[in-house]
Amino acid sequence: MTFWNVDNLQLQEFRPGVNSKAAIGKSLIMVCMEIAAGKEDTGHDHVFDQCGMVIAGKIEMFVGDERKILAAHESYFIPAGIRHGWKTFDKAVKLLDICPPQTAV
Amino acid sequence: MTFWNVDNLQLQEFRPGVNSKAAIGKSLIMVCMEIAAGKEDTGHDHVFDQCGMVIAGKIEMFVGDERKILAAHESYFIPAGIRHGWKTFDKAVKLLDICPPQTAV
Repeated sequence: MTFWNVDNLQLQEFRPGVNSKAAIGKSLIMVCMEIAAGKEDTGHDHVFDQCGMVIAGKIEMFVGDERKILAAHESYFIPAGIRHGWKTFDKAVKLLDICPPQTAV
Repeated sequence: MTFWNVDNLQLQEFRPGVNSKAAIGKSLIMVCMEIAAGKEDTGHDHVFDQCGMVIAGKIEMFVGDERKILAAHESYFIPAGIRHGWKTFDKAVKLLDICPPQTAV
């Protein structure tokens, strides 16, 4: 699990509309994730930070009062406790997303 | 600090040969980092995981017994306690690198 090429990494269905592959450590979980077109998370929050970067495609994301359509090479940092959500458009988006495991927070 | 475009983010000198910008949270530190040509870390380890992805350029990295030249969109996951290091070549490399803060491990 040390090195991945995120452009051609084999992903598996995590839940409907989300394919992913995860590297799970003691203090970090790194996930390469592809979210299908037309999906949405209207908002949630959690007690840990979350961050990542768009690899390909576009996603609209909000973090607290900030909202932005993110394209490739745009990153996000979601501080612990801040409500956030996202929606995809007419094409899938691929992200590299990082959070700590529940056991570490 | 919520959203960055890592292709044109303004970085500041962190130490000679390394320019960076960091987003520091409770459980994650996300750093966009540019390492100059001809730099090397011959190896070290720490008690937390570290991960990231190459944005542009190339870097040779070793993690335990695995060694690879990473180019854009190649990611790495360094488990806690595993010796790792890197060297750059004739051009700078830009990375997005994530680790937990010392206070979280």
